[in-house]
Amino acid sequence: MDNGENFRHEEVLKRATKALSSQDGNKNMCHLRRHGEPLPSQSQISQFVDICRSVLFPGFFGIDSVNTANIEYVVGVECEKLMELLETQAQAGLLLDVKCGETADMAQIARKAHGVAMDFVDSLPEMKRMLQTDVEAMYIGDPAAVSREEVVYCYPALKAITNYRIAHRLLQLGVPVIPRIITELAHSETGIDIHPGAEIGEYFAIDHGTGVVIGATAIIGNHVKLYQGVTLGAKSFDLDENNNPIKGIPRHPIIGDNVVIYSNASILGRISIGKNAVIGGNLWVTVDVAEGEKLVQAKANNILRFKSDE
Amino acid sequence: MDNGENFRHEEVLKRATKALSSQDGNKNMCHLRRHGEPLPSQSQISQFVDICRSVLFPGFFGIDSVNTANIEYVVGVECEKLMELLETQAQAGLLLDVKCGETADMAQIARKAHGVAMDFVDSLPEMKRMLQTDVEAMYIGDPAAVSREEVVYCYPALKAITNYRIAHRLLQLGVPVIPRIITELAHSETGIDIHPGAEIGEYFAIDHGTGVVIGATAIIGNHVKLYQGVTLGAKSFDLDENNNPIKGIPRHPIIGDNVVIYSNASILGRISIGKNAVIGGNLWVTVDVAEGEKLVQAKANNILRFKSDE
Amino acid sequence: MDNGENFRHEEVLKRATKALSSQDGNKNMCHLRRHGEPLPSQSQISQFVDICRSVLFPGFFGIDSVNTANIEYVVGVECEKLMELLETQAQAGLLLDVKCGETADMAQIARKAHGVAMDFVDSLPEMKRMLQTDVEAMYIGDPAAVSREEVVYCYPALKAITNYRIAHRLLQLGVPVIPRIITELAHSETGIDIHPGAEIGEYFAIDHGTGVVIGATAIIGNHVKLYQGVTLGAKSFDLDENNNPIKGIPRHPIIGDNVVIYSNASILGRISIGKNAVIGGNLWVTVDVAEGEKLVQAKANNILRFKSDE
Amino acid sequence: MDNGENFRHEEVLKRATKALSSQDGNKNMCHLRRHGEPLPSQSQISQFVDICRSVLFPGFFGIDSVNTANIEYVVGVECEKLMELLETQAQAGLLLDVKCGETADMAQIARKAHGVAMDFVDSLPEMKRMLQTDVEAMYIGDPAAVSREEVVYCYPALKAITNYRIAHRLLQLGVPVIPRIITELAHSETGIDIHPGAEIGEYFAIDHGTGVVIGATAIIGNHVKLYQGVTLGAKSFDLDENNNPIKGIPRHPIIGDNVVIYSNASILGRISIGKNAVIGGNLWVTVDVAEGEKLVQAKANNILRFKSDE
Amino acid sequence: MDNGENFRHEEVLKRATKALSSQDGNKNMCHLRRHGEPLPSQSQISQFVDICRSVLFPGFFGIDSVNTANIEYVVGVECEKLMELLETQAQAGLLLDVKCGETADMAQIARKAHGVAMDFVDSLPEMKRMLQTDVEAMYIGDPAAVSREEVVYCYPALKAITNYRIAHRLLQLGVPVIPRIITELAHSETGIDIHPGAEIGEYFAIDHGTGVVIGATAIIGNHVKLYQGVTLGAKSFDLDENNNPIKGIPRHPIIGDNVVIYSNASILGRISIGKNAVIGGNLWVTVDVAEGEKLVQAKANNILRFKSDE
Amino acid sequence: MDNGENFRHEEVLKRATKALSSQDGNKNMCHLRRHGEPLPSQSQISQFVDICRSVLFPGFFGIDSVNTANIEYVVGVECEKLMELLETQAQAGLLLDVKCGETADMAQIARKAHGVAMDFVDSLPEMKRMLQTDVEAMYIGDPAAVSREEVVYCYPALKAITNYRIAHRLLQLGVPVIPRIITELAHSETGIDIHPGAEIGEYFAIDHGTGVVIGATAIIGNHVKLYQGVTLGAKSFDLDENNNPIKGIPRHPIIGDNVVIYSNASILGRISIGKNAVIGGNLWVTVDVAEGEKLVQAKANNILRFKSDE
Repeated sequence: MDNGENFRHEEVLKRATKALSSQDGNKNMCHLRRHGEPLPSQSQISQFVDICRSVLFPGFFGIDSVNTANIEYVVGVECEKLMELLETQAQAGLLLDVKCGETADMAQIARKAHGVAMDFVDSLPEMKRMLQTDVEAMYIGDPAAVSREEVVYCYPALKAITNYRIAHRLLQLGVPVIPRIITELAHSETGIDIHPGAEIGEYFAIDHGTGVVIGATAIIGNHVKLYQGVTLGAKSFDLDENNNPIKGIPRHPIIGDNVVIYSNASILGRISIGKNAVIGGNLWVTVDVAEGEKLVQAKANNILRFKSDE
Repeated sequence: MDNGENFRHEEVLKRATKALSSQDGNKNMCHLRRHGEPLPSQSQISQFVDICRSVLFPGFFGIDSVNTANIEYVVGVECEKLMELLETQAQAGLLLDVKCGETADMAQIARKAHGVAMDFVDSLPEMKRMLQTDVEAMYIGDPAAVSREEVVYCYPALKAITNYRIAHRLLQLGVPVIPRIITELAHSETGIDIHPGAEIGEYFAIDHGTGVVIGATAIIGNHVKLYQGVTLGAKSFDLDENNNPIKGIPRHPIIGDNVVIYSNASILGRISIGKNAVIGGNLWVTVDVAEGEKLVQAKANNILRFKSDE
Repeated sequence: MDNGENFRHEEVLKRATKALSSQDGNKNMCHLRRHGEPLPSQSQISQFVDICRSVLFPGFFGIDSVNTANIEYVVGVECEKLMELLETQAQAGLLLDVKCGETADMAQIARKAHGVAMDFVDSLPEMKRMLQTDVEAMYIGDPAAVSREEVVYCYPALKAITNYRIAHRLLQLGVPVIPRIITELAHSETGIDIHPGAEIGEYFAIDHGTGVVIGATAIIGNHVKLYQGVTLGAKSFDLDENNNPIKGIPRHPIIGDNVVIYSNASILGRISIGKNAVIGGNLWVTVDVAEGEKLVQAKANNILRFKSDE
Repeated sequence: MDNGENFRHEEVLKRATKALSSQDGNKNMCHLRRHGEPLPSQSQISQFVDICRSVLFPGFFGIDSVNTANIEYVVGVECEKLMELLETQAQAGLLLDVKCGETADMAQIARKAHGVAMDFVDSLPEMKRMLQTDVEAMYIGDPAAVSREEVVYCYPALKAITNYRIAHRLLQLGVPVIPRIITELAHSETGIDIHPGAEIGEYFAIDHGTGVVIGATAIIGNHVKLYQGVTLGAKSFDLDENNNPIKGIPRHPIIGDNVVIYSNASILGRISIGKNAVIGGNLWVTVDVAEGEKLVQAKANNILRFKSDE
Repeated sequence: MDNGENFRHEEVLKRATKALSSQDGNKNMCHLRRHGEPLPSQSQISQFVDICRSVLFPGFFGIDSVNTANIEYVVGVECEKLMELLETQAQAGLLLDVKCGETADMAQIARKAHGVAMDFVDSLPEMKRMLQTDVEAMYIGDPAAVSREEVVYCYPALKAITNYRIAHRLLQLGVPVIPRIITELAHSETGIDIHPGAEIGEYFAIDHGTGVVIGATAIIGNHVKLYQGVTLGAKSFDLDENNNPIKGIPRHPIIGDNVVIYSNASILGRISIGKNAVIGGNLWVTVDVAEGEKLVQAKANNILRFKSDE
Repeated sequence: MDNGENFRHEEVLKRATKALSSQDGNKNMCHLRRHGEPLPSQSQISQFVDICRSVLFPGFFGIDSVNTANIEYVVGVECEKLMELLETQAQAGLLLDVKCGETADMAQIARKAHGVAMDFVDSLPEMKRMLQTDVEAMYIGDPAAVSREEVVYCYPALKAITNYRIAHRLLQLGVPVIPRIITELAHSETGIDIHPGAEIGEYFAIDHGTGVVIGATAIIGNHVKLYQGVTLGAKSFDLDENNNPIKGIPRHPIIGDNVVIYSNASILGRISIGKNAVIGGNLWVTVDVAEGEKLVQAKANNILRFKSDE
């Protein structure tokens, strides 16, 4: 390997390095700053989420040496770590709101990030209460669930909903971008894609979950249950003069209490699904559904059957 | 950062810690015990699965310095590790069956867990034989597969089926909860959700796989092939007096030998799909299909076509 | 634990080890060789991809201490690491092409692998340029995207497309198996399954993404946008005399510029979707679609509605 | 590298492995047992010591994120870890007392080890009190020490004395071998070799410390100070019929309160150095020294001086 | 293990934790502060030193993949890391100077720490030049040294001198405590104890080194060579009214250029050893030595020889 | 932190980096080469030594899960790792012998390094046999040793002698520099400095050990015992025309069988210490000692005693 090729090695290395580190390369992005400001870190955010799970469900995630004697110590240590990680990442997120070329007011951002960390930790007990209702809903509602413990240890939906509730809280506290990174971590882990902007009530259950999509402006009541592949999506976008979608307009459905939506159904647009309604599997729904209505696929008359040797 | 806020820091930390470590918070769950008993550990179970893969497919997963000279040493060391991890996790799983308030017979649980570890390792060679048939089925059946090695290195379905076969064996050996954690690890990794309770024959193939769901009481013959998004699910649940699903009733389909089910088809309820049947993509099947039958979507007469400027 | 069971421990360990390390066990696979040759390593390939992402999007992935002062140093160090990892893994991949029983020309393979590493690094700047167009397409086309930074930090599709562009380049450079491992890493991470053999133009966007499948011989133009669950698949395979699919025949669709395909649509077989066409959600398309055509689901006349107490 | 040499590789590997793993190889040692019993682990003992240091001197060693708000949580978590590590290592130590060929009573050993862990943790506060006196002695007595904090952060003697006090306590609690491993960790780290059997009072100080040796039966009062290279050793050993030293006889000096011993002095045999005595540097002392006596080297009359060109 | 003992577990854990985390326990030390201020971290300082070594001697320490093509990138990345670590640790050190009860001016401390980091990195090239003279001296002066490379890779003295030169620079820049931690790291690693306050010229050599002690106010010229066990110490301390040593008075020797001091010699007190002097092994020197003088041990007339059976 | 200082940051970083990575900086050293050649790596050599210890003393060092059932697997895996590490590091060492400016014959170096690795592993069993004699000597000869196991777990001398025997073997096999790095690892760990060139017989014992120095040309018989601080050194060096020591001349003592040398004695120059001789502590010996002679310090007539208030 010690031949003339090595001159090429040096040349290639230096040419590629120069091109890839040129500031022009990241046009319209100015997240890289001078020394001192934190950047959002996928690994630290992931660690933050792991710690949230470990204090929301002690003994189920993270530290496996917790017991009834040491639980308060374990939770205390983890909460402190969580606060530190969040404070740094909240700063990183807030910095992304500073326009290219503008100077960040670091002191103010640090203060705001510190407040976010405090407020977030303060709301963890209430978050835990809501998540316990989700566990209950998934345990009661699934004949395959043998215990509440199994739901916590195994159900991907619980992980996705936990990340959502964490992210939603951070969004309420005014942190940009980080909430979305958090729900995408769960999307990657579970195949369930819940936008942090959605509003979701108590006793929320998702079964299996792969392929579920819940859009940014969706509103979901209490005791709602979804199956795998359900989309609560937008039907179409209002376009601006350049034919690009206009951002920020409500465009996802409103789902009432006690609604059940079976697998692979798509509910699209700013429509309402009334309380106690049931949406059958594989349906494509783009208009309102009244309270208590049941929608099912018509008789499977579009299936052709024939013997394989026909 | 050293301002009055810090008093709030201490106060918030202590309040949240106290609330989150209160025993009341995990109602109906008593997995946390006094010193000495292991808890199920997601990271140790994940490590256990990684080691199983490394001994079932030496050189493909895990240790990358295995060669023809040292293979027996490598496999021996890994099997020992696997046994130790399993013994601990099996104990942890068995403890979850002990009711809240009851005292666990630790000696008996330890003995049972030891037996589980022995029996499991003893059955690894047969498990490997079956997985080789799965590799063969995926290699032969997929025009995109260039070699058997590629199937082992790349196909997510092989990972999901490996986890399933490990978990199914542990379920047979009487270990609670851990099997489900193992199949959910694969669900997260591959988007393929196979319940450890399902019974699956040899030469089983899944292509692409994202979104596949195979329920707890499904029974699948030999030489069966599924495509992405296929659900072998329940149609409806028998409800108890509280309107909650009754647990433990057979409610998923029985699939005969040599059946092929194309992408996104849903086969629901305790129905039978006869040998050699073929189920077309996107179908919603809730009634029995006879041996050798082919089901395809009727002519796509429900699609409207128009020019985009109409 | 120090009872008669321990004799069983030794016996079980040795019997399983012998069986699992037997060369017969991996029939038709001869990837294990004598000392000196590298095997493909999932963890090293994963590290390679992480480093590619860190130099293609500095500050977004990987090293979070990069800033405007040190960016060239960081990128240079990472490029060197990437080259080393790739050189080894390319060797490992090339060795898989050596037939069982044949002797590998290690010097030639090492030379080829070195060239691959050089050529790959040399093409990183162009790859970055293309990926910037993908970011742009996803930012402009999604009303939920608040900034380009958010797209890079959060969108799973960007990760999947990055892995695809890396893998596609390695396939062009003649490396076997490794490219597929790389796209499967993204498949696992995002639920988006793009075969490295596909050809994909600039400004490519996928929204949500879970369940998307793009087959090995698919061809996709510029400015194409897909939603979750879209399959660009094969309709049927030509079979050989043993009834097995023939490998290597074009069997996936050709998608023109500016096409949009909505969620869960399946486009199957070697058909053409003309420029500017729009394919509605949930459709099953197996015939050509003309330029500018719009396909949507006919009126949802196969849905039955009734009040839940009927 | 893929030449005939490789057959040698396999042959050499297997021959060396067989020879090195033969039970005959470790004659008179039977520490290796069947499955289930822990072995002393240098890395776990080292971790145990690190944790002891972190709870004895919170904020100085180990966890660097401790603060006044979270200190109790941090210390509690560390104490629990310490207890678990100690319980396992105490078992490992106790097992070494079981004769070759005899069967260990694992239940009794486990019970004893548990008791050791409890008793050890219970005595940590008193150990901390004594170590604070050592800090005080080193701060007051060394003109180079600028603060007590510097003593704790920097002085190797404090590490050696801490390890000694930990090891001495474990020896009192009846744990074999582990105490010696702990003092040897400090010997390696600091060059100070204190046998865990020595008895050492409060306000103990060592300056610089490299080369200090304190034998197994030495007894040291309060407020004693040693400099580098001091040996408190044995002068000669009583021999048995085979001319080997007889084990267990008191053979090291007794040092009274307030004694100072300067660098490289050797105090040998079961002699007494009376209270308030001062031993000058480089001396070789083998007879008793009375209370308040000062020993110094006679005038340096054995040094020859000449100009270098003589 | 699940017996009555467990109540003791909880009780012992909580009692010890409470006692050990009590603020009273660390009397006269107030290094623990509220949230936000860094503490000196032994592991981060150790990392800082490792990185200094890796940039002062690229390819010898740390990163082993540095080569002529990537050296600038590697060094740049490491310098940045080093700067960050130093900035934090310098803050931690400066905070130790803040009196108990006083409020730290964090902004000023941060500014000073930043300046320290800048100035330190700026002086690295000069530090490297001096260290190259030390390498040269050790290579030329030791018949056992086969190459300069061997000196850098192997000689403990080079590590000790490197740490000293780093620490001395930080002391000059006004950083408390951290310099001493750095020289103690080398003391632990090499048995060579050089106080950061000492002043040492170019071409400094130490052979073997174990037991060498160089006091805080020692001054050493150029081309000086020491052997193992040499002490440049204090003879006696001026005491204050409490009989404690007064801090900060010059009390260690001044060593002229080209002096050689052989093994285990002790040079004590504020004396001068003139240029070109040679001090023989094992000597105890407490008075001035003139330029060019040679001191050797008088004829070994204090050794008794007899046959062992006498 | 985002002030004008940052321009200084960039400037300082770039200036220091340029200076430190300049090739001129390492004058007379050309260890840095182009891509592909390994450098000696302290961390890999350290790992190599750890693995040697783990196979020479299975269960005492390294892997703590070895037992009688899995010992052969564990040892086999470790031997393979050891071989790989050694092969790479031997190459790195051999490359240091290539003169600056000359081109290395990489193929020949690789072949030689492979042979070294084979030969080294082949000699491990004999090395183990010798080390067992050392253990025996230290157990029998030390009244403080309670078991052979304690000697292996705790005695620093055993670690130093193990490293020496490893390094000596590598020197015999013609590997430059690496052997010295290995003995310096032990020097750092134990304070015992044995040059790999020394020749040392069986049943070798060192007690305590800190400060022991054994020179490159020393020859030591069987059943020799040394105490702490013993130097087997050179008395003076033959100088070349530049007044620098001439390298490679025998200059250290020859020690006969059964010799005992007590603490801090210095034996200097190419003298002979005859069989069964005993050298007392603190002696300075520069002339031959006959067989069976005993040397002790004359009556301590150079000590002045006075009461401290005199």
